[in-house]
Amino acid sequence: MYNQEMYGLGSKRSTIREIFEYAKKRAAEIGADKVFDFSIGNPSVPAPKEVNEAIVRIVNETPSVALHGYTSAQGDKAVRDAIAAKYTQRFGVQLSGDDLYMTCGAAASLTITFKALACEGDEFITFAPFFPEYGVFIKSSGAKLVVLPSDPNTMLPDFEALKKALNPRVKGVLINSPNNPSGVVYGVGTMKKLAALLQEKSAEYGAPIYLLSDEPYRELIYDKETIVPCPMAYYENSIVCYSYSKSLSLPGERVGYIAINPKAVDAKALYAAVCGAGRALGFVCAPALFQRVAAECDGLTADLNVYKRNRDLLYNGLTESGYTCIYPDGAFYLFVKALEEDAAAFCERAKKYELLLVNGSDFGAPGWVRVAYCVQTEQIERALPLFKALAKEYAK
Amino acid sequence: MYNQEMYGLGSKRSTIREIFEYAKKRAAEIGADKVFDFSIGNPSVPAPKEVNEAIVRIVNETPSVALHGYTSAQGDKAVRDAIAAKYTQRFGVQLSGDDLYMTCGAAASLTITFKALACEGDEFITFAPFFPEYGVFIKSSGAKLVVLPSDPNTMLPDFEALKKALNPRVKGVLINSPNNPSGVVYGVGTMKKLAALLQEKSAEYGAPIYLLSDEPYRELIYDKETIVPCPMAYYENSIVCYSYSKSLSLPGERVGYIAINPKAVDAKALYAAVCGAGRALGFVCAPALFQRVAAECDGLTADLNVYKRNRDLLYNGLTESGYTCIYPDGAFYLFVKALEEDAAAFCERAKKYELLLVNGSDFGAPGWVRVAYCVQTEQIERALPLFKALAKEYAK
Repeated sequence: MYNQEMYGLGSKRSTIREIFEYAKKRAAEIGADKVFDFSIGNPSVPAPKEVNEAIVRIVNETPSVALHGYTSAQGDKAVRDAIAAKYTQRFGVQLSGDDLYMTCGAAASLTITFKALACEGDEFITFAPFFPEYGVFIKSSGAKLVVLPSDPNTMLPDFEALKKALNPRVKGVLINSPNNPSGVVYGVGTMKKLAALLQEKSAEYGAPIYLLSDEPYRELIYDKETIVPCPMAYYENSIVCYSYSKSLSLPGERVGYIAINPKAVDAKALYAAVCGAGRALGFVCAPALFQRVAAECDGLTADLNVYKRNRDLLYNGLTESGYTCIYPDGAFYLFVKALEEDAAAFCERAKKYELLLVNGSDFGAPGWVRVAYCVQTEQIERALPLFKALAKEYAK
Repeated sequence: MYNQEMYGLGSKRSTIREIFEYAKKRAAEIGADKVFDFSIGNPSVPAPKEVNEAIVRIVNETPSVALHGYTSAQGDKAVRDAIAAKYTQRFGVQLSGDDLYMTCGAAASLTITFKALACEGDEFITFAPFFPEYGVFIKSSGAKLVVLPSDPNTMLPDFEALKKALNPRVKGVLINSPNNPSGVVYGVGTMKKLAALLQEKSAEYGAPIYLLSDEPYRELIYDKETIVPCPMAYYENSIVCYSYSKSLSLPGERVGYIAINPKAVDAKALYAAVCGAGRALGFVCAPALFQRVAAECDGLTADLNVYKRNRDLLYNGLTESGYTCIYPDGAFYLFVKALEEDAAAFCERAKKYELLLVNGSDFGAPGWVRVAYCVQTEQIERALPLFKALAKEYAK
């Protein structure tokens, strides 16, 4: 009657969603202040004040038909030109508005890119730990997701595994840095190594292997020395999938973009394929008002000091209590080694302390858990003694 | 390298887009006031003032994280409840917020619905003339579009053709009323006849044939006696795909909904399949601010008097000049019989008078042209003598 695969996707709740429901139920039972939900990656910091100021000003100043009307499918030209100019200025790579395609956020950036690229039999590679929706999006495009391991000490790509996995069916390698769920940033060295290998293999196979960079957390970094390298500066056949959801704290408004490296082989045709994929999936244009807001607020961020404080507090607190943690350069997740081999069992024991964590198996990393620190700082302060008690239980 | 089908969709301009580009070029040559572009279906009337008032008020009154954060995938619960309550009140059918799934506009409503329903080998039927993107959306879902004729005098469905075309592979029949491009509204009689036939055939095949109703023009009707019947009142296995683009004049903001008849067979599972399809296509949620705006402004419309005046002026003017026109009960299109068999040649001759029309072949109706009257009234007043001169040329 209906499509069973879609029914499966719609009816099987994600683990995170299940924890969310459990948290609500538990809060009703014992009080919200006694439940420590670290499951959801929803920005906890308000949008910068310039966002709402821009909304009100644009609405008051722009004629209705021009403001709320269709933009071109690829996005308003002035918006694209403004964002591309800032991109060029910031990353030192030449980008024009005609290389940018405005989208309804990161998920749309990804589904459109996969649909534009995927041909029968294609593979896309990513590295664990990874955002599990990648699997859904890639399958929906008709291609296959291949998950490779990372170095368990650094959570950086395992290049030996990558060398073995590359083959002529691989259409692209998908990276996500700063990473959800590990918080790790791929530095310049990693980017150069990746670029060199993909360059070599593309030449060998006689067809480009695209580097797809999913960058919703690009601006969420907390140390002066942390740099998120721009893929376009290192590799010609690169496509950046971006969203303003996290940087501007407006995940509900659905605005982002796809940036195609103008140096990519046949870049104009690739851009046309992106336009075609957006059309086939039913994305007529990105929301018009928020396109303009994004152009005006591009480069701003929500107050990152809150996330930095949370990160430091949580990372220091947990390592002091004996936990093995990946140091998160960015995003708002801490990846923590479970205190027993079975992370599901560990999550269950954490639950007894009302600590709600996400099993790393969901991200392709068994034995680990994700702790989202986009929460009120006070929640972390009050949770640390509980994490300590949990560790003590295991130390017995 | 990339997907050739997507490249085709992105690089081949639609006829309407080509006319739009021609109009711009021509306007630069001879002056915008001398070019009469009747090609684009973009609302020409501002959004009701309540829309911008709601935007500013909601932004000023709602905490940022609550306002701009993710809503649930199916849409904010309060928004869905409010819209469903108004739906029940207006159409007299029982609908709850849990039967509604908020979308990024009509195209998303359609792609999500097709993806939720389509299984290998499925067919969807629609009647010419029809909105050509249906073909793109249905193909993308993996199903096949079957186009049936309408009665050329009324542009209502040809039921004999439908009877012959129905078979166990038909998953749904897609209607669009008020219709783009004919402006025709399917009345209660048509709806009852359609419902009876689908009921009979569903029983015969032992599986529901869904009635999919694409209703972006639902509120754009101009005569007291015109009623757009609610499909749910006539047929249980019905799904309504709606958008606020035309009613509230905000096509760029991308907000609409899918309403699933709660009386449909296995309605909850069908709803889950819709949720799964939205997820697979990359629609995380409909834009959050505009979900709230839609809930507040549901039931309002832009000033329809402008469209009514345009319709009357254009319909009367053209029929007086000898054109055969379909009387448009709604939407903002007039469907006109070309004055020679080859509508493309007719459009070319119209071009000499600077009249830019769309060939009906694009809508599956050769021999006809579409005249969009969502333009300034003055454009119609000045164009009528040119239409008259064009008709005279043919009368020679």
